[in-house]
Amino acid sequence: MSESRPFVSLATDFGAAYTSVCAGVVYTIAPAANVLVLSDEITPFGVREGAMLLRQALPYLPAGVHTGIVDPGVGTPRLPVAIETGRGDVLVGPDNGLLVPAAEKLGGVVRAHALENPAYRLPDVSTSFHGRDVFSPAAAHLANGVDVADLGAPVEPLPLDVPAPVAGEGELTVPVLYTDRFGSLVLGAERADLAAAFGEPAPGTPLDVTWTAPRPGSARVTFEETFGAVALGEPLLWIDSSGWLGLAVNQGSATAVLGLAGAAALTLRPAPSRS
Amino acid sequence: MSESRPFVSLATDFGAAYTSVCAGVVYTIAPAANVLVLSDEITPFGVREGAMLLRQALPYLPAGVHTGIVDPGVGTPRLPVAIETGRGDVLVGPDNGLLVPAAEKLGGVVRAHALENPAYRLPDVSTSFHGRDVFSPAAAHLANGVDVADLGAPVEPLPLDVPAPVAGEGELTVPVLYTDRFGSLVLGAERADLAAAFGEPAPGTPLDVTWTAPRPGSARVTFEETFGAVALGEPLLWIDSSGWLGLAVNQGSATAVLGLAGAAALTLRPAPSRS
Amino acid sequence: MSESRPFVSLATDFGAAYTSVCAGVVYTIAPAANVLVLSDEITPFGVREGAMLLRQALPYLPAGVHTGIVDPGVGTPRLPVAIETGRGDVLVGPDNGLLVPAAEKLGGVVRAHALENPAYRLPDVSTSFHGRDVFSPAAAHLANGVDVADLGAPVEPLPLDVPAPVAGEGELTVPVLYTDRFGSLVLGAERADLAAAFGEPAPGTPLDVTWTAPRPGSARVTFEETFGAVALGEPLLWIDSSGWLGLAVNQGSATAVLGLAGAAALTLRPAPSRS
Repeated sequence: MSESRPFVSLATDFGAAYTSVCAGVVYTIAPAANVLVLSDEITPFGVREGAMLLRQALPYLPAGVHTGIVDPGVGTPRLPVAIETGRGDVLVGPDNGLLVPAAEKLGGVVRAHALENPAYRLPDVSTSFHGRDVFSPAAAHLANGVDVADLGAPVEPLPLDVPAPVAGEGELTVPVLYTDRFGSLVLGAERADLAAAFGEPAPGTPLDVTWTAPRPGSARVTFEETFGAVALGEPLLWIDSSGWLGLAVNQGSATAVLGLAGAAALTLRPAPSRS
Repeated sequence: MSESRPFVSLATDFGAAYTSVCAGVVYTIAPAANVLVLSDEITPFGVREGAMLLRQALPYLPAGVHTGIVDPGVGTPRLPVAIETGRGDVLVGPDNGLLVPAAEKLGGVVRAHALENPAYRLPDVSTSFHGRDVFSPAAAHLANGVDVADLGAPVEPLPLDVPAPVAGEGELTVPVLYTDRFGSLVLGAERADLAAAFGEPAPGTPLDVTWTAPRPGSARVTFEETFGAVALGEPLLWIDSSGWLGLAVNQGSATAVLGLAGAAALTLRPAPSRS
Repeated sequence: MSESRPFVSLATDFGAAYTSVCAGVVYTIAPAANVLVLSDEITPFGVREGAMLLRQALPYLPAGVHTGIVDPGVGTPRLPVAIETGRGDVLVGPDNGLLVPAAEKLGGVVRAHALENPAYRLPDVSTSFHGRDVFSPAAAHLANGVDVADLGAPVEPLPLDVPAPVAGEGELTVPVLYTDRFGSLVLGAERADLAAAFGEPAPGTPLDVTWTAPRPGSARVTFEETFGAVALGEPLLWIDSSGWLGLAVNQGSATAVLGLAGAAALTLRPAPSRS
């Protein structure tokens, strides 16, 4: 079944129309493909957000050819690549770290090759739309059974630049990775980072959250397993479905309620216990 | 044909990426499925808007498995359900009224069962993303031919809470159900409600519309069959393609032009005739 | 392959839900179709923007039935049409010029017929949603093999009304066709228009750009082949992937940085050389 209807996904910061043009190129070259637009609304130039999306989403998609395109460097020297994973996927996109966290979730990088072979590009390659002219044709030919090694020279993919959480004395400073559609902040820390910094909080544990930008502020927020554990409009810290720490507001927007639009990092401390 | 390529639709308030993850789960379990994202842009937590969308849209989709997920109660006790309809569809989603108006349009509720059987969930069910872990796997297994009764115990679906229009002396007060993408207000009244309150208006009939929120205001608006019957930028009342009364502005936004963003109800009266 | 899985695309200003209803109508009538939503986010009533999108995108999609719906005149007298192209596509939509530039890119108009035959409409045609009731059923029946001539009487499609660039003494005034999702302005001029006005600029050539609306302003901008040729946040003029002149900002929004939201036209002049 899967061989007769190869699976291709697309995740871009292009918006609907340009992304669908990419889907059209795939269907033109690989008419039997099953193309899913995973996202066309990644924040423009948001490489880190795109990388987190791919890392979170691809394990739930069928094995196939997954194209991720967030490419601030389009038209300048940087390699387009295809990365084969341990699960049997091929990830296609720019070599800027976007694909690597997902590849690690999919069994790791088996091999990677640059997209150089003109036979697997459109005849005319524009300077500004490599999604259409380079990445989508490569994805389609891979879906048709072309071997990764036929695309070009072997390469070592560049890692993604993600800041790590920083543990201080009884506190943890965590980077804001991105803000989701609901206004919730996805933070660069996992359950184990909390545990290492000050012990994993039980549900209902209050934490003090402070920040310095966009303006200095603070909030007392409880760590919870579910949104419904706090009242409407109240904030909570929780572990999201992909294992990341998040700061959200029950049926509201954390960025709006707490004034956190544009925040780059938050510091968490266990709230002092009342005696 | 339809048995070899079962039809699955998804309507959510998740945005593109999370909704596509749900589609990916369906394709993983049911590789032959034909998955259509009906909407990924329902207003977050807008159960009533989602219910109206499903009621309006599903009669125009092929019979199949239709998944609707607008679920303010995710992670708290409320049942996930599958509802079989008279037309032969199965509607999958939370038991919060979201699916019931659509089921009534599709031949009524034949039977409904809770989604309890762990064989038809993902192995690990998160607390915050039941769309991916509970609803989409159930939809995929149903598309593969699993019987609704195999999912769990029979249940009686909860109705949707929708305010009714209120007729007064020569006037009709109608709830605002939601605002569409063009800034038009979709109102909780149908042609028959107008007829019962003060006689169905002929095209061109002027009506006085008043409201108390977000700020008290009023407008004289004609009832028309088509947008083009009024000048550019002028408001009209009309019956939309699903039979609901609407308040719109020709090639403009009614909420912007009339200051109606956030309005909950409007009162309509025939305009006094000039003598 | 393509006969057993006919390709249908949809491009509308309807938003996700209404566009997906159109897809559902196509799948109901033509269950074997492969339906791609090319765009559901054309600016409402943006006929010119939609026409430029179709002209740019359709050459990259498989030959098939391509439905474009941006229809300020819905419900008023104007013909719905189907246009057969030299490449073998059929374009379906309102006869308001929307489809014609794309047809010219696809080998020209071979023949065009009005959508009149009630056998190829839904049984009940609403006044406000011809996308669902007229255009989508026609597209589906065409995908099933119905001949264009069976739809209705032959017609001569109306051209699109697009302003042309105006060359003055050493200057070129170009219309703003639309603003893309990144805030870049797409301008109604091609490389040859620049060449005719003052010679095609080499990469790095500075040009003075002036405008009178929304407020009078000006900027010195270099003509470049790639975004990366200017610093972050700096503007450039370039030829986009469909051959149009564009005004953009590297990793930023030209409309925001230059105050150009709502601009209708720009005037370009070679910057005076320093001596």
